[in-house]
Amino acid sequence: MGVASSVLDVSTMRSRLDRLRRHATDAGVAATVVSPGSDLRYLTGIAGSSFERLTALVVPSDAAVAPVLVSPELEFAGLGHVPLGELGVEVRTWVDGEDPYALALGGVPVGPVAVSDMTPALHLLRLRDAGAREQQLAGPVLRELRMRKDATELAELRAAGAAIDRVHARVGEWLRAGRTEAEVGADIAAAIVEEGHAQADFVIVGSGPHGASPHHAVSDRVIETGDVVVVDIGGPLPSGYGSDSTRTYAVGSPREPDVAVAYAALQAAQAASVAAVRPGVTCEAIDRAGRDVLAEAGLAERFIHRTGHGIGLDGHEEPYIVTGNDLPVEPGMTFSIEPGVYLTGRWGARIEDIVAVTEDGVERFNTRPTDLVVL
Amino acid sequence: MGVASSVLDVSTMRSRLDRLRRHATDAGVAATVVSPGSDLRYLTGIAGSSFERLTALVVPSDAAVAPVLVSPELEFAGLGHVPLGELGVEVRTWVDGEDPYALALGGVPVGPVAVSDMTPALHLLRLRDAGAREQQLAGPVLRELRMRKDATELAELRAAGAAIDRVHARVGEWLRAGRTEAEVGADIAAAIVEEGHAQADFVIVGSGPHGASPHHAVSDRVIETGDVVVVDIGGPLPSGYGSDSTRTYAVGSPREPDVAVAYAALQAAQAASVAAVRPGVTCEAIDRAGRDVLAEAGLAERFIHRTGHGIGLDGHEEPYIVTGNDLPVEPGMTFSIEPGVYLTGRWGARIEDIVAVTEDGVERFNTRPTDLVVL
Repeated sequence: MGVASSVLDVSTMRSRLDRLRRHATDAGVAATVVSPGSDLRYLTGIAGSSFERLTALVVPSDAAVAPVLVSPELEFAGLGHVPLGELGVEVRTWVDGEDPYALALGGVPVGPVAVSDMTPALHLLRLRDAGAREQQLAGPVLRELRMRKDATELAELRAAGAAIDRVHARVGEWLRAGRTEAEVGADIAAAIVEEGHAQADFVIVGSGPHGASPHHAVSDRVIETGDVVVVDIGGPLPSGYGSDSTRTYAVGSPREPDVAVAYAALQAAQAASVAAVRPGVTCEAIDRAGRDVLAEAGLAERFIHRTGHGIGLDGHEEPYIVTGNDLPVEPGMTFSIEPGVYLTGRWGARIEDIVAVTEDGVERFNTRPTDLVVL
Repeated sequence: MGVASSVLDVSTMRSRLDRLRRHATDAGVAATVVSPGSDLRYLTGIAGSSFERLTALVVPSDAAVAPVLVSPELEFAGLGHVPLGELGVEVRTWVDGEDPYALALGGVPVGPVAVSDMTPALHLLRLRDAGAREQQLAGPVLRELRMRKDATELAELRAAGAAIDRVHARVGEWLRAGRTEAEVGADIAAAIVEEGHAQADFVIVGSGPHGASPHHAVSDRVIETGDVVVVDIGGPLPSGYGSDSTRTYAVGSPREPDVAVAYAALQAAQAASVAAVRPGVTCEAIDRAGRDVLAEAGLAERFIHRTGHGIGLDGHEEPYIVTGNDLPVEPGMTFSIEPGVYLTGRWGARIEDIVAVTEDGVERFNTRPTDLVVL
């Protein structure tokens, strides 16, 4: 547990709590329970994740009832920088041996309770047994706030995009035949931090046949001349807002004969989905724009995942750019556009940019060329 | 998601699944849903944590019904090393746009379902809405297995203890006046990895008044001559089994006049709790043994947390060494003994060893002296 509120002032926090109460009221819930994680960070600047000791912010939908922050006594010192008093939040600390669940629910209006999506079962079911019996996900309420980024959030995501672009610009320093994926990955991870990230959250170096497995990370496979290599990397800035970008490289001329044609189709597909982004277009239409291009090239079966995911304080969040999601995108929404083609046992490729919906179209936060980078 | 099953062979996995079914039957549940995390790693060797796409192992208590592993298609390639066929596990993959919750519950006997403790609300409540309406925590069932370590697990924890002891042996290389806690912490974090850990999970360097905050991590405070400094460090080996050890250092002669007397009491308290460990003694009696020593020294109010926590694939797990826990310890249980004294605004100290209950007493996995280390 710690605090990182560089992009969050008291008036922003107050406004977010107000909007949470409004959306929660509309959703018919009496209170929202927010556990440590990105939801709590979004509302209060408190970073960290859930452990076995309950920490939670309970926000009654009725603004006349004060929100309550329940915290283990020994972790509360770490929250000293959060302006809880100014926010009108009542603090209730507890020590080992006490029951934090009754403490969390004391004085909370009776009724359905929304619980933040990443709350562990450990806490969720004990809150249920302590009286919060009617539970629903807070995700639909919180995503109404978190999906639409304000100017400060957009600036952080833009900076994260520029930082990861600087890493991609340097991949040629490390990626070459004779090195293992793991060795290349370690160099990239160090550069992710050097370029301003708080940490490297993920480093995928998928060489040759490994590129055909979208979630492969790194391995001891030695990279060979002729390999196509998927490099998908990212992590959070100190503010918590993250980067996520994929480029595909070739070590010398690609060994597999179908790379040039399939890659050209992929590049066109990615551009088509990016070009489809503007206010009012549905998430599934953005997905379909690129998918149709790949289908025309006979590659429909080779694109085995959704086109993208939202990004903000979480690396994956709403909105998801996927078949069946008829949500129209709005200015301030930020998400990845990352189609791929996967030729099992041989090679794979993916191109990923983070984009933001603007008033009249789209802004790419990753601005490097999308061509296959032949090293 | 990835695999690290170096300490887990098929017969061990099979035996763990059998024991899970037996304990689950005793607990009256029809099936246990195990999400990614330490529970799933314990049963199958599959490492990783939960994300927004559902991965889960569903184990019916009736051994005649095959367990089901639900996995996103695109992550399943990463599970290639798990002997699912030999274990009789049926695999059901799904792609974006499909409903994985109905898939997970298909064919599962009707009745109460136990859900692993760290399952996110996102999945728990959707499983409920898909038909698993009667939910309880799987923790009480799984802890019956996980609390009692087998010889291989004990060997891993012993090796982790030796590795972190080697780091403590080197703290004098880095901890000195004029450096910040963060600088010292970075050196310690690097050494944690050098000494064989997969990563440094936590590095607390609590100097001067920061030592009085048990969960302080590091800061830009410059360490001064006369400071007492709490160094609480650890992380997992590649197998997932972790270390966790605290020693308290003094940079020159301690500034505060009450350090010598209070530290002596703390050292006696920690030794008393360690000495109390043997089969049949309750967790709360182990807690009380040390707490009484501090109370006699007038320091009862300065020891503001429980005495310890279990350790294994999780850094914090059952059994908890805390007031109110009347569980008698048994051979194979492993936990920390870590009393502390906290003098708000001035200084703090803590001594932490991981111990294992043996057939006739206790084995310390951290074997360095517990004296205040004056540098």
